[in-house]
Amino acid sequence: MNITCLKENLKENLDNALRIVKYNSTLPILNNFLIATDKGRLKISSTDLEIGFISWVSSKISKEGSITVPAQLLSQFVNNLPNKNINIEVKDKKLYLSCDNIKAFINGLSAEDFPIIPKIKNTFSLNINSKILKEALGSVVNSAALSDARPEISSVYFVIEPDQVKFVSTDSFRLAHKTLFLKSEELKDKIKIDYANSRNIIIPLRTANEILRILGDKNINISIDMDQNQILFNLTDTHLISRLIEGHYPDYEAIIPKSFETICRASRNDLEEAIKLAGCFSSKLNEITLKANGAESRLEVFSNNNEVGNHEAKISSEIKGKDVNITFNWRYFLDGLKNIKSDDIILEFNGDQKPAVIRPVENNDFFYILMPIRNA
Amino acid sequence: MNITCLKENLKENLDNALRIVKYNSTLPILNNFLIATDKGRLKISSTDLEIGFISWVSSKISKEGSITVPAQLLSQFVNNLPNKNINIEVKDKKLYLSCDNIKAFINGLSAEDFPIIPKIKNTFSLNINSKILKEALGSVVNSAALSDARPEISSVYFVIEPDQVKFVSTDSFRLAHKTLFLKSEELKDKIKIDYANSRNIIIPLRTANEILRILGDKNINISIDMDQNQILFNLTDTHLISRLIEGHYPDYEAIIPKSFETICRASRNDLEEAIKLAGCFSSKLNEITLKANGAESRLEVFSNNNEVGNHEAKISSEIKGKDVNITFNWRYFLDGLKNIKSDDIILEFNGDQKPAVIRPVENNDFFYILMPIRNA
Repeated sequence: MNITCLKENLKENLDNALRIVKYNSTLPILNNFLIATDKGRLKISSTDLEIGFISWVSSKISKEGSITVPAQLLSQFVNNLPNKNINIEVKDKKLYLSCDNIKAFINGLSAEDFPIIPKIKNTFSLNINSKILKEALGSVVNSAALSDARPEISSVYFVIEPDQVKFVSTDSFRLAHKTLFLKSEELKDKIKIDYANSRNIIIPLRTANEILRILGDKNINISIDMDQNQILFNLTDTHLISRLIEGHYPDYEAIIPKSFETICRASRNDLEEAIKLAGCFSSKLNEITLKANGAESRLEVFSNNNEVGNHEAKISSEIKGKDVNITFNWRYFLDGLKNIKSDDIILEFNGDQKPAVIRPVENNDFFYILMPIRNA
Repeated sequence: MNITCLKENLKENLDNALRIVKYNSTLPILNNFLIATDKGRLKISSTDLEIGFISWVSSKISKEGSITVPAQLLSQFVNNLPNKNINIEVKDKKLYLSCDNIKAFINGLSAEDFPIIPKIKNTFSLNINSKILKEALGSVVNSAALSDARPEISSVYFVIEPDQVKFVSTDSFRLAHKTLFLKSEELKDKIKIDYANSRNIIIPLRTANEILRILGDKNINISIDMDQNQILFNLTDTHLISRLIEGHYPDYEAIIPKSFETICRASRNDLEEAIKLAGCFSSKLNEITLKANGAESRLEVFSNNNEVGNHEAKISSEIKGKDVNITFNWRYFLDGLKNIKSDDIILEFNGDQKPAVIRPVENNDFFYILMPIRNA
């Protein structure tokens, strides 16, 4: 192999590829990148056997070839090079780099030993604008379970139907639910499904977080291809391929309340501020108390910790229905508010023992279900 | 006590005061702030018994008083308040806060139990512009020993003489040395000593780091008062008081080379880049090799690690004297370069076994001594 490419182009792709590399002592080749010429470009691959990453870098190719080299070292070295052309040559299982007055080689391993990143059989495909995908996925991802004790909920659940795509996540204490209505004025040109039937898939949380990071601030059309076991996020120059989680997603529809005894409208910012202040006083259980006081048209946010002190904030609110006095984990409450962009929000309750709902005032495309902390 | 002050003013002072608080389980009152009215302002104090911090906040005082309250809680609570007036009241060992529609109290302890922050007997005083102090202290602080196994070098050494002030630090592998010439054109209005004799003091590293942080981007005159055991950095509204380290600073003058066999001049940026690249290949000992090649008028930076690979960079350089081939810890080399602002630097050597010196081309106010890694 003998190629020349620009440092800046190579660097960005190596940085993304490095994120997928997890240190592996039993299969050391997974600590490497696969570097290969591919149809006039340089192809960089990395994998941890669950997620595969491939990206292509514009290069001038004098001689075809391939090698695998330690990912961390190559990435760090290229980061520190001046912003100029880099020449890369492969000879005798060594990767030779030269740039300006700098010369180096890195010992590599044969490309044949690198695991094959599976191809998608592409039975199902979705085209979506990257900003729409990022916003939808970003609004649910912080509610997924972090622990993989129950892998099916350490995930984002995609429900793909002919006229809508739903994004769901839950850790059993709260649930975030975002819907993209494909026929809406806003979305009709930005998302397209090449399939008539419904399809549900469970995407690992780590995959969701990686694709969010790779999407960054891009505003491009991407295609998402799926088969039985795999998903491919295709950004043209960059592919992220991940296994899907097998098994069944919990029947979350059963816990979505259909009616409410209490409905409140309040300022999102005022509520966020009051919850953070109450959180300062809460114990390790993170509990704070919310009262809906209809007679006074206000929400009251309390925290009472005998050891350290006491907090109370009053927020003006339109309240319909019964008064309520309910205890929540303030961090989970805050996560829900953070996923809502509108100035005012709606809170809905069915007493102090049943799940509450937070949603924006203007749109019906998002809701967040929050379990109360039950009083002993 | 009953006072009113602006959130923003209080917040900044609490943030600074909190940095001094180290969690202490045997003397829990050290986890608190002392809050007291003082001559028309609110005084906030914190201490870990080694460093004391006092600052004064403009306030409207309706009733005098004092209390101590948990530092972390008060700081976090005030940070989350809206940017408005805060009313603070003390009753029955409780601190009552109110701001907008928010009310809280924090359980406190009696102010009498808070340790007294010592006063300086002010036998010696130095007036200095904060930017000059920050630059001088900042250029040596990263060479001090981090471990307090030898507290006298986990420090910055101040040598105060009638016409110059020196700042020195070393961890025995390298030494940074900055001089402020009091009679120079640049400094004659920016630093003043109220004393005719010399004076040497050893300041704990943590104190040096805290004062650097508090100085921030300020451009003010500050006074430094010292007695036998203590130092006070007086920023008018903020006082940082620290114990001094007893004992003798190592006789570093003995290791400053008086003459050199090899003198090289090179670009600071080129050298920094080459050293970072070589560092990618170095082993856990962090060793890289530098060759001064007079015949070719260049410096060569090498790193050779049989396991992973090899690096070599060539930098054009004016070289006088003998060729040299010497091994350094690349991280220490980099620390020295970072402390130099000029475009070109001078490297001076006496063979491969003796300390080398790095200094700026233009000024004689800074040098950095670097011990080689001796070849076995």
